[in-house]
Amino acid sequence: MNRRMVIYMIGQIIKLEAVLMVLPLIVSACYREFYCSIAFAAIIIFSLISGFTLTILFKPKNKIIYAREGFAIVALAWIILSLIGALPFYISGEIPNFVNAFFETVSGFTTTGSTILNDIESMSRSMLFWRSFTHWIGGMGVLVLIMAIIPTDSGRAIHILRAEMAGPVVGKIVPKIKENAKILYIIYLALTIVEIFFLLMGGMPLFDSIVHSLGTAGTGGFGIKADSLSGYSPYLQWVITIFMLIFAINFNLFYLLLIRNFSTVFKNTELWCFFGTVLVASGIIAYNIFPIYQNFGDSLRHSVFQVASIMSTTGYSSTDFNLWPESAKGILFILMFIGGCAGSTAGGLKMSRVLLMFKMIIKDIRKLLHPRSVESVKIEGKAVDNSTLHGVGTYFALYIVIISIIFIILSFEPFDFQTNLTAAVTCFNNVGPGFGSIGPMASFSEYSDFSKIILSAAMLFGRLEIYPMLLAFYPRTWMKKN
Amino acid sequence: MNRRMVIYMIGQIIKLEAVLMVLPLIVSACYREFYCSIAFAAIIIFSLISGFTLTILFKPKNKIIYAREGFAIVALAWIILSLIGALPFYISGEIPNFVNAFFETVSGFTTTGSTILNDIESMSRSMLFWRSFTHWIGGMGVLVLIMAIIPTDSGRAIHILRAEMAGPVVGKIVPKIKENAKILYIIYLALTIVEIFFLLMGGMPLFDSIVHSLGTAGTGGFGIKADSLSGYSPYLQWVITIFMLIFAINFNLFYLLLIRNFSTVFKNTELWCFFGTVLVASGIIAYNIFPIYQNFGDSLRHSVFQVASIMSTTGYSSTDFNLWPESAKGILFILMFIGGCAGSTAGGLKMSRVLLMFKMIIKDIRKLLHPRSVESVKIEGKAVDNSTLHGVGTYFALYIVIISIIFIILSFEPFDFQTNLTAAVTCFNNVGPGFGSIGPMASFSEYSDFSKIILSAAMLFGRLEIYPMLLAFYPRTWMKKN
Repeated sequence: MNRRMVIYMIGQIIKLEAVLMVLPLIVSACYREFYCSIAFAAIIIFSLISGFTLTILFKPKNKIIYAREGFAIVALAWIILSLIGALPFYISGEIPNFVNAFFETVSGFTTTGSTILNDIESMSRSMLFWRSFTHWIGGMGVLVLIMAIIPTDSGRAIHILRAEMAGPVVGKIVPKIKENAKILYIIYLALTIVEIFFLLMGGMPLFDSIVHSLGTAGTGGFGIKADSLSGYSPYLQWVITIFMLIFAINFNLFYLLLIRNFSTVFKNTELWCFFGTVLVASGIIAYNIFPIYQNFGDSLRHSVFQVASIMSTTGYSSTDFNLWPESAKGILFILMFIGGCAGSTAGGLKMSRVLLMFKMIIKDIRKLLHPRSVESVKIEGKAVDNSTLHGVGTYFALYIVIISIIFIILSFEPFDFQTNLTAAVTCFNNVGPGFGSIGPMASFSEYSDFSKIILSAAMLFGRLEIYPMLLAFYPRTWMKKN
Repeated sequence: MNRRMVIYMIGQIIKLEAVLMVLPLIVSACYREFYCSIAFAAIIIFSLISGFTLTILFKPKNKIIYAREGFAIVALAWIILSLIGALPFYISGEIPNFVNAFFETVSGFTTTGSTILNDIESMSRSMLFWRSFTHWIGGMGVLVLIMAIIPTDSGRAIHILRAEMAGPVVGKIVPKIKENAKILYIIYLALTIVEIFFLLMGGMPLFDSIVHSLGTAGTGGFGIKADSLSGYSPYLQWVITIFMLIFAINFNLFYLLLIRNFSTVFKNTELWCFFGTVLVASGIIAYNIFPIYQNFGDSLRHSVFQVASIMSTTGYSSTDFNLWPESAKGILFILMFIGGCAGSTAGGLKMSRVLLMFKMIIKDIRKLLHPRSVESVKIEGKAVDNSTLHGVGTYFALYIVIISIIFIILSFEPFDFQTNLTAAVTCFNNVGPGFGSIGPMASFSEYSDFSKIILSAAMLFGRLEIYPMLLAFYPRTWMKKN
């Protein structure tokens, strides 16, 4: 374990966070939120000092990063990022309990969107901005950002990228990591700006447009109204729906579109499965909730909005779907597990993993009928190697085991079965709202501090796809010689 | 596909069922239940005629059975067994709706124990006996029974055994299939008789002792009282607890005990994990429900009873655990998935599969730390081959997919989230009772006929571990040349 390199990278992350906090500082200045300005300024100074101390003291001689260092850097970076990111809420007094502030920040960075705030509309503008901005930072990944902007001379930075980016296989669009990261962030920024534009066109105020676009882009889901997006016009809800779906697509496809490689995009199985699932689920739910809205347009809008919100793991709501029939809720519950496409900002298992599992199942069934045949699992015409398949199976087992453990721990809270189970599922999959007492119009504030810490861990485990967090708490990872 | 052989074996099964129905016929004669006697006699005659017709008309020239024939025979046998087994309830008029009768019989043979009966105490004795006897028949497997008693000259009968017996790997204790099946059934019968003896010792009436022993041996769970076993003495409840645990153990271990091979039994990891889980879960739940019973003895008895009942997938209850705190219910819910040991009469995933999954996870984590190391998964000192491991992963994925589909279908019923989810889980894992409206003191009678058929399919899929049922409905399985 190259410990110096790990600490050095953490220093870099802290400096980066300080720089990123300049934005909410500016917002606080614009809105003349004096206490908030002080809080942000103080934390920026503190972070810069600690960041520079670490990078100067622990400048590594050896910059080599193996898989192990990659996992450790990513896990630690996310925890420290959240601890520092919680300070503005806490110091400004807007979230007086530190555990609550930490929960809210983890929920932000992991793009979950679960909240402990009951009176969201009384928050100051700069804090609301910071809250949504954490979604945007966490969506594409903070280490991806570092690699895009800071000159990294490590040839093995791919290990960091792999540990932070989601999905069973991380594809590179261009050979150089730095270029790769830069392209992803440029596409990300551009799409966010396009969304802001479309929201402004529909008459949404500038501040609202920005925070909602940040929340959509990161597939986070923090809103600024008590009723999420219910109060906005149908046009605005449709814009958000479309952008939730866009940000749940593999970003490599946008790059392929840019370089006019349309045929590869067209042949992307994951994309078709994703939209197929959205279509089927929305259709059934629209039919299902028709008696509530008595109007085809409204039923369709709410069903597509909610399906897009849950599958992209954003978590916005256009209506209180906790009041929908059990059948619609049942479908949404299962969609929470699936999530978006690999290589997007969405959470969940990822559509490509679900697809691989289905292909493995079909292969095994064929094998039972023809024991001597040699079958291989293919995706887009290419055979998937056995270790990747094996990895998908093990990941799924681990995923269910961890959700089960979180569910059992939460069961000790005075909530019902549905609330506790969906709390574990929604946090782990980075969706946001659940059913029962944690529905889209409610909050997680009633959970105990202990459970909030467990749920924060669940969000981090889910966002980083388990292994980095697991390894960071495994003592042997940190042994010098190994 | 050797279709003649499949149909021939089905004929054998029907004849066997006719013979087995002589027992409830005798019971109906003893209790002078005239209408029941007529029903049983008529069905016995009908079954014998159809059975002989099939075995004579379809006597196969070629007795070879491959995996495919094994799956087809087992799946069809279980469906037809249940259809005929439902007739006594239907013809006697004791369960006037055929779907209900079918559900009850499938629940019996698959050793689930979910019931649609609301007034169980008004049933006639012979029907109650037949109901519990189906547990005993289905527990060890009806094809295993055929192989134990009928001279089979097929050298490949192992494919039938594999398709009917549960667990990731089916071990043979002696080389010959026929001997193997015989030994298993002798142990099974002996243990059942021992249980009857211990129940009689505690003052339980003979009839009650017999039906409860049949229900325990098959890990089924049909009782004869509206409150399951709540009304019996603590001694009787402890006896049932111990036998539920015994019947959830791999039967090969009993054989090893008989031949005095204690060291192999002692080194069985699955056994230790099973008892370890029972111990930990009971401990937590006993602590958890202490405030309800205000008495250490009662809390311990109820918690061990319920944990044994759920883990062995029996489903008896000593108290209404639906009223327990969410934490106790949460633990029981997760235990429903685990189930008993492979090679027992219990359902669920099986402890050995769970164990293999954990070992695969640990192996993968080690692999991440030391990418070049070669690790293998070992159980009892022997390396498990990759195709078995791969099979465990795929099975688990398929298992979760099927439970999810069943849950979504059930969601269209007017029940709450908890009821529908636990209904899917409890039926698929062959446990019996769930939470909410299908708790241990309630029944499945309120579900629609359509859902009852879906749940019956779930029980069959769970009992036969998915593949036989899946393949039986896959047209290519039945193609002549393949």
